[in-house]
Amino acid sequence: MRIERFISNPVLTPEDIRPSTPLMQIECLLNPGVFRFRGKTWLLIRVAERPEQKVGAISFPILDHNNDIKVFHIPSDSPELDASDPRVINYKGCDYLTTMSHLRLVCSEDGIHFHEDQRYAGLVPSDQHESYGIEDCRVCQIDNRYYLTYTAVSPDGVAVRMRETEDWIHFEDYGIILPPHNKDCALFTEKINDRYMLLHRPSSPEIGGNYIWLAESTDLIHWGRHSCVAKTRPGMWDSARIGAGCSPIRTGKGWLEIYHGADENNRYCLGAMLLDLKNPSKVLARSIAPLMVPSEPYEMAGFFGNVIFTNGHIVDGDDITMYYGASDSVICAAKLSVEDILSSL
Amino acid sequence: MRIERFISNPVLTPEDIRPSTPLMQIECLLNPGVFRFRGKTWLLIRVAERPEQKVGAISFPILDHNNDIKVFHIPSDSPELDASDPRVINYKGCDYLTTMSHLRLVCSEDGIHFHEDQRYAGLVPSDQHESYGIEDCRVCQIDNRYYLTYTAVSPDGVAVRMRETEDWIHFEDYGIILPPHNKDCALFTEKINDRYMLLHRPSSPEIGGNYIWLAESTDLIHWGRHSCVAKTRPGMWDSARIGAGCSPIRTGKGWLEIYHGADENNRYCLGAMLLDLKNPSKVLARSIAPLMVPSEPYEMAGFFGNVIFTNGHIVDGDDITMYYGASDSVICAAKLSVEDILSSL
Repeated sequence: MRIERFISNPVLTPEDIRPSTPLMQIECLLNPGVFRFRGKTWLLIRVAERPEQKVGAISFPILDHNNDIKVFHIPSDSPELDASDPRVINYKGCDYLTTMSHLRLVCSEDGIHFHEDQRYAGLVPSDQHESYGIEDCRVCQIDNRYYLTYTAVSPDGVAVRMRETEDWIHFEDYGIILPPHNKDCALFTEKINDRYMLLHRPSSPEIGGNYIWLAESTDLIHWGRHSCVAKTRPGMWDSARIGAGCSPIRTGKGWLEIYHGADENNRYCLGAMLLDLKNPSKVLARSIAPLMVPSEPYEMAGFFGNVIFTNGHIVDGDDITMYYGASDSVICAAKLSVEDILSSL
Repeated sequence: MRIERFISNPVLTPEDIRPSTPLMQIECLLNPGVFRFRGKTWLLIRVAERPEQKVGAISFPILDHNNDIKVFHIPSDSPELDASDPRVINYKGCDYLTTMSHLRLVCSEDGIHFHEDQRYAGLVPSDQHESYGIEDCRVCQIDNRYYLTYTAVSPDGVAVRMRETEDWIHFEDYGIILPPHNKDCALFTEKINDRYMLLHRPSSPEIGGNYIWLAESTDLIHWGRHSCVAKTRPGMWDSARIGAGCSPIRTGKGWLEIYHGADENNRYCLGAMLLDLKNPSKVLARSIAPLMVPSEPYEMAGFFGNVIFTNGHIVDGDDITMYYGASDSVICAAKLSVEDILSSL
C-alpha cells in the first residue's frame, strides 16, 4: 500500500510558531484540521501552551471567570498531586490539564511549507465551556461554509462544540452540540436522506466503551437518532478506543473513514472503515491491520509518544494528503491513495 | 417541613406483580414514572427480573440478536468474574447487568392501591439499543401527548431514548436522543423561549463528573445547546452524583426540581433546586440539607440499600404526591408541599 510520509517531516514543530503571549511556551503542536481556502492549503493547528516550569512547582493556565487566562501553581511534591500522566493532573480531587490549547491557522501554497497570515488568527478559548482549552478541530466544508467541530474542555467535562465561518474572520457559535464525554466529531460533507450526519465518540465510565457513533440533524445545531457504528476490538490494535478522523471521503463503494485506534498501551495507529453510502450506520469493511503505525522517531517519542492522530486531509482524485499529529508534539504529513486503502479492506 | 410518607409504604413490592414470563422472577420494583390518564393515577414501574439462581452459577437474561430473551449462565467461582456489585457484573472483561428491566403500567383510583389493567401492557426491551433492558422512565405530559424518556441499556452503553404516546397502547419511537453515558432525563412541561427543554445527566470517565445539564430542541428528536446547570458538591450529601427527578414544577418563583444526590457511600437522598423561569440554566437556590434521607427500614435495606430515588409525582396545587423507589426494591410514596420546599431553599 502506498503510504509516503513527507521527506520534510515533521512539517511543523513548536519552534516554528510564536507563543500566544510572551508569558507562554508552546509545548506541543497537535492534530490539525485541514481545508482549502483562497487557493491555499490551511491547517487549523492545536497549539498547547503553558508557562515556563520552575523547579518545585507545576504551573498551568486556565481561563478564569472573567475569561482571562490565569496561571495556577501546584507544589510538585504535594501528596495530593497525581502527575503520572503528562497531559492531565489530579490535585485535591480535581482534574486539570497541564497545558491549555488554542487553534492557530497556518497556510501554504505547496502543502509542505506553512506560515502564519496575520489576517487570520484562528480561535482561542472564549468562555467557561472552554476554560481548559479547545482541541482537535475538524473542518468540514459544505457549499461555501466551513463547519468547525472541536473539543471544548472545562471542569464541566469534555464536550463537542461547533462554529461556522465563511471568511475565517467571523465565526458563528452553534453551541455545545454533544455533551460530555465526547470527542472526535466528524461531519459528513453532504446530507444523506435529507439529514446532516456526523460521527462522534461518546465515552462511558461503565457499560459500553470508547466507540464510534452516528447522529443526524436537520439544522446542524440539534442532534439526535444516535446509534453505535463501530466498537473497539479486543486483542487488536484498536482494542481500547477508536475515534473518527475527519469527514468521510465519498467513494463509489461507500464512505471511506480514516480513524484512529488505541490499544491498552496507548499506542495510537490509523485504520480505515467503509460505511454504506445511503445508510452510514452500516460498516461494510474495516482494516484488520492498521494502515499506519508509529514507526518514525518523531512518531515514537515526544510529549506523549507512540501516537499518530489525524483529523484532517485534502483529497484530490485518488490522492489523499493527510496531515497528522505525531507523539502529541509535531505536525507531519503523508500521501495515501483512496484506491489502495479500499483494496486493503 | 411537611414530608408525609404513606402509612401503607411500601405501596408495591415484587410480590404484587406477576413476572413477565414463568421463566423469570421479579427481583426488584424500581423508580416509577407517574402520570394522570383517564381519571386515574398511573405508575410506569421499572420491573427488574432474572431467572431463578441455582447454586454455582449466576444467571441473567439479555436480548439476543433476534430480539428474543436469552438466559446466560456464568460459573460463580470463575476467576474471570467480578460480582462485587449486585447490579452489574464483569465477566471476561465485559459488563453485564444481573437483571433485565422492563416498564410495567399499574393504575389506581386513590393513588394508594394500584393494580394492573390488561389493556395497558407498558414497554419491554424491543431492539439492540435495549438489549440489557429499559429503566427509570420519566413521563411528561404536553397537551394531550405523553413523552417517555428512559434509560436504554445495551453493550453499546447507557443512553436516553424517547417514545411518545397518546393512548398508552401505540408508541412512537423518537430514537436515542442522548448518547452514552447519560441518564436521568426530565423534560420541561412547556416550551421556554419557544424551545423544548430537558435536564439530563451525562457522566464522564475523566474531567467533569456526574452533573446535571440542560439541552434544548425544536422537535423533541434532535437536541443541542447543551450547558451544565449543577454539579456535585464535595463533602455534602450530593458529593458523588446528582440527577434530575421528573419534570420541573412551574411555580411563581421558578422551576422547582426535586433531584437525587448520592455520596461516595452510594447513599441516595433527595433535594431540590429552583431554576430561573425564563433561563433555567440559572440555579436560583438549592437545598443545603437533603429533603429526604433513607431512614425507614424499607429505604435502608434491600437489593441496593440506602436509596431513595424519585422520577415521578402528581402535583395538585400545593400538594406533591411523590412516588419513589426505595432500596432498589419496592415502590413507596410521600406527600410534600411546594411552598414548604420553596421556603426551605
